[in-house]
Amino acid sequence: MPKRKRTPGLPPGSLVKEAGEFLSETQLYYFNYNVDFFEEKKITSLSELPAISENSTLWLNIEGIHHAEALKEIGDHFKLHPLLLEDILNTDQRPKFDEFEDVVALILRMYYSNSSENLLEGEQVAIVLGKGFVLSFQEKPGDIFDPVRERLRKSSGRIRTRKSDFLLYALTDIIIDHYFLLIENLGDKVEFLEEEIFSKPSEDNLEQIHVLKRELLTFRRNTFPLREAISQIQRSPTELIEVDTHRFLTDAYDHIINIIDLLENYRELNSGLKDIYMSGVSLRMNKIMQVLTIVSTIFIPLTFIAGIYGMNFENMPELGWHYGYMGVWVIMLLTVVVMLFFFRKKRWL
Amino acid sequence: MPKRKRTPGLPPGSLVKEAGEFLSETQLYYFNYNVDFFEEKKITSLSELPAISENSTLWLNIEGIHHAEALKEIGDHFKLHPLLLEDILNTDQRPKFDEFEDVVALILRMYYSNSSENLLEGEQVAIVLGKGFVLSFQEKPGDIFDPVRERLRKSSGRIRTRKSDFLLYALTDIIIDHYFLLIENLGDKVEFLEEEIFSKPSEDNLEQIHVLKRELLTFRRNTFPLREAISQIQRSPTELIEVDTHRFLTDAYDHIINIIDLLENYRELNSGLKDIYMSGVSLRMNKIMQVLTIVSTIFIPLTFIAGIYGMNFENMPELGWHYGYMGVWVIMLLTVVVMLFFFRKKRWL
Amino acid sequence: MPKRKRTPGLPPGSLVKEAGEFLSETQLYYFNYNVDFFEEKKITSLSELPAISENSTLWLNIEGIHHAEALKEIGDHFKLHPLLLEDILNTDQRPKFDEFEDVVALILRMYYSNSSENLLEGEQVAIVLGKGFVLSFQEKPGDIFDPVRERLRKSSGRIRTRKSDFLLYALTDIIIDHYFLLIENLGDKVEFLEEEIFSKPSEDNLEQIHVLKRELLTFRRNTFPLREAISQIQRSPTELIEVDTHRFLTDAYDHIINIIDLLENYRELNSGLKDIYMSGVSLRMNKIMQVLTIVSTIFIPLTFIAGIYGMNFENMPELGWHYGYMGVWVIMLLTVVVMLFFFRKKRWL
Amino acid sequence: MPKRKRTPGLPPGSLVKEAGEFLSETQLYYFNYNVDFFEEKKITSLSELPAISENSTLWLNIEGIHHAEALKEIGDHFKLHPLLLEDILNTDQRPKFDEFEDVVALILRMYYSNSSENLLEGEQVAIVLGKGFVLSFQEKPGDIFDPVRERLRKSSGRIRTRKSDFLLYALTDIIIDHYFLLIENLGDKVEFLEEEIFSKPSEDNLEQIHVLKRELLTFRRNTFPLREAISQIQRSPTELIEVDTHRFLTDAYDHIINIIDLLENYRELNSGLKDIYMSGVSLRMNKIMQVLTIVSTIFIPLTFIAGIYGMNFENMPELGWHYGYMGVWVIMLLTVVVMLFFFRKKRWL
Amino acid sequence: MPKRKRTPGLPPGSLVKEAGEFLSETQLYYFNYNVDFFEEKKITSLSELPAISENSTLWLNIEGIHHAEALKEIGDHFKLHPLLLEDILNTDQRPKFDEFEDVVALILRMYYSNSSENLLEGEQVAIVLGKGFVLSFQEKPGDIFDPVRERLRKSSGRIRTRKSDFLLYALTDIIIDHYFLLIENLGDKVEFLEEEIFSKPSEDNLEQIHVLKRELLTFRRNTFPLREAISQIQRSPTELIEVDTHRFLTDAYDHIINIIDLLENYRELNSGLKDIYMSGVSLRMNKIMQVLTIVSTIFIPLTFIAGIYGMNFENMPELGWHYGYMGVWVIMLLTVVVMLFFFRKKRWL
Repeated sequence: MPKRKRTPGLPPGSLVKEAGEFLSETQLYYFNYNVDFFEEKKITSLSELPAISENSTLWLNIEGIHHAEALKEIGDHFKLHPLLLEDILNTDQRPKFDEFEDVVALILRMYYSNSSENLLEGEQVAIVLGKGFVLSFQEKPGDIFDPVRERLRKSSGRIRTRKSDFLLYALTDIIIDHYFLLIENLGDKVEFLEEEIFSKPSEDNLEQIHVLKRELLTFRRNTFPLREAISQIQRSPTELIEVDTHRFLTDAYDHIINIIDLLENYRELNSGLKDIYMSGVSLRMNKIMQVLTIVSTIFIPLTFIAGIYGMNFENMPELGWHYGYMGVWVIMLLTVVVMLFFFRKKRWL
Repeated sequence: MPKRKRTPGLPPGSLVKEAGEFLSETQLYYFNYNVDFFEEKKITSLSELPAISENSTLWLNIEGIHHAEALKEIGDHFKLHPLLLEDILNTDQRPKFDEFEDVVALILRMYYSNSSENLLEGEQVAIVLGKGFVLSFQEKPGDIFDPVRERLRKSSGRIRTRKSDFLLYALTDIIIDHYFLLIENLGDKVEFLEEEIFSKPSEDNLEQIHVLKRELLTFRRNTFPLREAISQIQRSPTELIEVDTHRFLTDAYDHIINIIDLLENYRELNSGLKDIYMSGVSLRMNKIMQVLTIVSTIFIPLTFIAGIYGMNFENMPELGWHYGYMGVWVIMLLTVVVMLFFFRKKRWL
Repeated sequence: MPKRKRTPGLPPGSLVKEAGEFLSETQLYYFNYNVDFFEEKKITSLSELPAISENSTLWLNIEGIHHAEALKEIGDHFKLHPLLLEDILNTDQRPKFDEFEDVVALILRMYYSNSSENLLEGEQVAIVLGKGFVLSFQEKPGDIFDPVRERLRKSSGRIRTRKSDFLLYALTDIIIDHYFLLIENLGDKVEFLEEEIFSKPSEDNLEQIHVLKRELLTFRRNTFPLREAISQIQRSPTELIEVDTHRFLTDAYDHIINIIDLLENYRELNSGLKDIYMSGVSLRMNKIMQVLTIVSTIFIPLTFIAGIYGMNFENMPELGWHYGYMGVWVIMLLTVVVMLFFFRKKRWL
Repeated sequence: MPKRKRTPGLPPGSLVKEAGEFLSETQLYYFNYNVDFFEEKKITSLSELPAISENSTLWLNIEGIHHAEALKEIGDHFKLHPLLLEDILNTDQRPKFDEFEDVVALILRMYYSNSSENLLEGEQVAIVLGKGFVLSFQEKPGDIFDPVRERLRKSSGRIRTRKSDFLLYALTDIIIDHYFLLIENLGDKVEFLEEEIFSKPSEDNLEQIHVLKRELLTFRRNTFPLREAISQIQRSPTELIEVDTHRFLTDAYDHIINIIDLLENYRELNSGLKDIYMSGVSLRMNKIMQVLTIVSTIFIPLTFIAGIYGMNFENMPELGWHYGYMGVWVIMLLTVVVMLFFFRKKRWL
Repeated sequence: MPKRKRTPGLPPGSLVKEAGEFLSETQLYYFNYNVDFFEEKKITSLSELPAISENSTLWLNIEGIHHAEALKEIGDHFKLHPLLLEDILNTDQRPKFDEFEDVVALILRMYYSNSSENLLEGEQVAIVLGKGFVLSFQEKPGDIFDPVRERLRKSSGRIRTRKSDFLLYALTDIIIDHYFLLIENLGDKVEFLEEEIFSKPSEDNLEQIHVLKRELLTFRRNTFPLREAISQIQRSPTELIEVDTHRFLTDAYDHIINIIDLLENYRELNSGLKDIYMSGVSLRMNKIMQVLTIVSTIFIPLTFIAGIYGMNFENMPELGWHYGYMGVWVIMLLTVVVMLFFFRKKRWL
């Protein structure tokens, strides 16, 4: 679970990088496009940015956000509110949608499909939408947005024909698409655990179930607020989002709901698994104890009988009988037979 | 649980068939009717379709939706939104109702009564309602809609006297009717498990309970959103649904609520069964252990007494007594009697 | 749990009697009254009914609803919507309130106090309120409404001075009064189980708890929607319910809430009982095992000591000692004393 | 849990005393006051009551409500609705606020701090507020309202300067103050149980936890609706409650919320206690069984060895060895040492 | 859990100090500032206070609130409502926001990061906002507000440029910042317990889990209402809070939500830990019992065999055989081998 490290008492909007572990140098790429026109460039200074125009969309992708100075510069250039900059810097934000005077911002968590070890590693992405521009802040360089870049370059689909709000949607949509990979992976884990627990349970299952619970909880912490955030975009009175884009946002909203549904199912199934594991352990244990106890129960009376005739009393008539020894064997065999019959009748064997 | 397989990064509305396992060639049937007139035909090309008119209803039933080209053609012909086509193709949609400019669409899951093995297999059905036409998209050929076809042919009931919105209702109603068969089947399973667990519990019960839980969860995932979807139809401002049809939709809504009520009851009963199963196992085990332990407890002191007189000390006066051996038997019998009396008093026997 | 048996695909409003087990011949009684006037009569044909007038109230009580023909005739006579007739016939309806053009209908479940065996047996009652008339449909003849009939005959209270809506209330109120008997009975069962489990638990308790859970769930399925239904009556814009009657409906609503409160309490107590039963079983078992195990633990070392001196080595000096045998006894007694002291100190005894 | 005893079928508003166990003769006291004027008197007939005036407040305190005749007389005198009188009589009401034409009524439950045995015993109080008068109906004589009487007599605080609505508040406030005593008492019980279960658990704890659960549930049944009722007063459009009194009602509302918060916490802690108790029992049992089983496990092989050399074979060379006996002892000691070492390594000891 | 000690029956607004344990002499500091001007002073009498002006903000910090007389004097000076004074005095308030005629007040709980022992110790803080002034009431002297004081002195950030409402926000924000330290600490405890339970569980874990549950519950009791309170500030129609400050309050609201999210996660993880602990205990116990039982089961039949040949029958042919003794050893070894093989096959070893 990501932890927020704050120094209490800082004035609000303080640009001190406090959390987030993946730090690299700030890298800036921009895409400037409209239906007829496309330009992309890696820059090192904000002065290289083209002018913002109503007729084109400028997408500035900022990778590496640990450099508070650089961030402040960007904030000044695009006139971002200090609290927004603070939210971008604090990379353990709850996903949320915020409206400011001139811009709106969506902050959410992005997951990679290739991070095989820890599924829930990920990074915070902040998407700021203004009139004619979109800023996307990533913690570290990544290739998740590549398909969008490709569509921009190829001028395929409707993306080049739409304004900046559609780019906000496109970026959000691609991030949510990666959520499906994650939820599938979590679902596979649940199924794998299920199968293992029913066929050959091992001692590690208990810890695996707990770890999975943690992962599901953490993922939930990031999807539930996102649902809310997207729903807020739709209810927002901002003029930055055009009416036509709402249909697409509804689609993204449906995807999130679908993910949440699956998530809740997996949570319920996972929490049921622990009970089933323990029940299975208990059943198997019971069976062992039962058989072993029955063995003891059969031999203890026999040992007693043998003990009787191991006594050294001078006057024990049976000891002198010719068939005494054989008789004892008969008695013991009878005892065993009766007990087995009794156990069988009681269905304990 | 159906899984969504998506290639992240595709532009929204991409017609790539990504999920759904039952694929067959696309088959097209149409029914064209009003009060006075009825025509039905299997066609192979959209050019064979009659013109859409306000005075009659055209019902085009599309079976097999895996052919993206064919689907795109249908979409173009009826001017369907690309996102709607995408939803129709992705056969793991959450049930939902969507309004577009000229059409509304209800996407839901259909279950067969005859799929004896896996009750929750089923397929996605999309019903698109436009002015004068209804499109129904099925994953594979099926006969669930046959009674509606029959009523259309026979001109029985009010179906031929009503517009296309009533056909939407009629198709939805027949699908929901099959839900009753499913929920009855699930209820029977719960009752069967109950009876088995109380009379002759077996080791498989635990897995059966878990499988049933999964089925109930999956069914729930498909009924809860459907309730919402039908309620949305009723609140929808669309002019495609006539006022008279609302009464019938309310009836369908009541059916769904009834199913959900039963579903929740079964879920609660099923989740209680696991506890009862484990309690029963535990009770039976306790009883076995108790009896067996009592046997041991009785014989262990006796064996000790026999052991005493099996010692080889030279100076053991009892060994020489004439009634020593008999005395030991008496002592042992007394011991047993006292112990049985004690156990009985403690109600352990 | 009542099950709905439906033949999927029937047109909505089909009058096929599909569910309901208590069938008898349809019997018709009517009461026609206003402040000054009272008439009651058993009839065999609808043609015997008096004319409906705004100045009096006609209450037609229909007992036995299995005769679809008769029902259809009544429906035609009072111009009831086909879906309403269908709801009356299907006797496993969820309690609900429905508004139609000229009438409103309340469908609910009625319980008898005298059905000693299965408390939750009961029957569906449909009360239809129109201008100047009330129809009450019962599955089988019953005497629950007798007090209302009596009040009508005696012209006692305000019932004769009010319109038909008050009769709807009076019938509902008397049905809800019987709910109190039922919930008291269920509460008694919970208390009885509680007492038994704490004083002398038996093996049947587990099944009794489960059966009680089923009963509480079923009762809940019928009371929760009723609360909703009565609340809907109050919010309904219909002119059939006069303002003065709302105060009385609020009273009925309060009764239902009170019942639901008790029901939820009983459910929670009942679900806690299972845990307590199992805990008790476990405690008692533990105690038995503990005492028995202690017995074994004491005698096993003693038996070992006896075994030592039962060995036949030629060279065992102790065997020849004069006080050897007595010494062994002393050692064994010491062993016992030490062990008992240890167990006592550990508070195991 | 208080039970409602109703005779089904009585007309609504019937004044038959049906529930409530504490019955005594009806006693009437009145207080008549305004800023300048104060009078208090015990009366035996309603004719002794002073005239109701807008400039003063008449508080009539009725103790003992079982006398239906007297109640009816009071009802007639103050023109109370029959349903209100019925609610006052039925002393197992759910707390509620009701508005009638000329009066409003708050029905709630009052608890005594001194009822040491059964904390949840208590009585129903109905407070009726009209223009210029307040009626308070108690089941039996009590001194909870004494501080209010004192304040009235002393003319201290703002109570004499305010209208009748403030008196309603003052009475409610004092009742809620006693809830704090009750919730503290319940909290003490939870803490006491906690401490006992962690330090020296006894067999009675299980029943104590269940009894406490019952008490918490019952108390909850009376506080949750009260919150609702007070919130209803605040939302009520009645002109009987002056704007200035709302601030005070908000304060009472906050108190109730505070009580509910504590109540829910205690419920959660209490329900956790059962698990902890059972876990503790299980832990202690495990430890006992473990030690005892280890004792058995150590001695059983030793006994076997002794048994070997207790055999009477003619040809057992070891028996003749000079150091045979000592050798056996060595072997047995070695066995014990190895086993203890093994147990220690496995951390079973 | 803090307990409310009330003397029932006191008139509302009575200034009797009833709860709160940390009492010290009342200490007064004030800060008076605007953009251009700053003054701070410790005073002993209210007469030393500067005049309240619309152009500057007066912040009076009151430490130690047990002196009812002093509090009453302050209340009179700033014209505070008696109920507000009562709330300030009763230091076990539920966090809340209240609006009065001229002032608004936020009551919340403050936690110290350095209180290492009992994390949830803390104190109640009341912040009263009026036109041109802010009063902050603390139970005991503390340094949590120091950073705000520092910012005021240094005139850094926007705090000196804003009105009194921003000071209310700044104080609230710094208190909430300390909540993060607390929730981190609680999260660390959960993780520490997790690790310990999975690696080397001890008997104390059960109590630790319960204590942690209590802490989480108590913390929840103080954060949930705070969320509500801050949301109320934002919805409040008061003119004391300027529009610009809302953005900052939203930020504080987000922080609280974030804390609540973490809190709920920790609660769920913690409640899962108890099950895992007990499951672990059960697993380990099972394993011990299994091994020990197997040892017994192997030796008991062997002891029986030895017992057989320890019998003293005169006619036991085996005793005379030359290889009899060796034969017994062979039989016993075979028995052991067969049993081990059987156990291994059953996977009990």
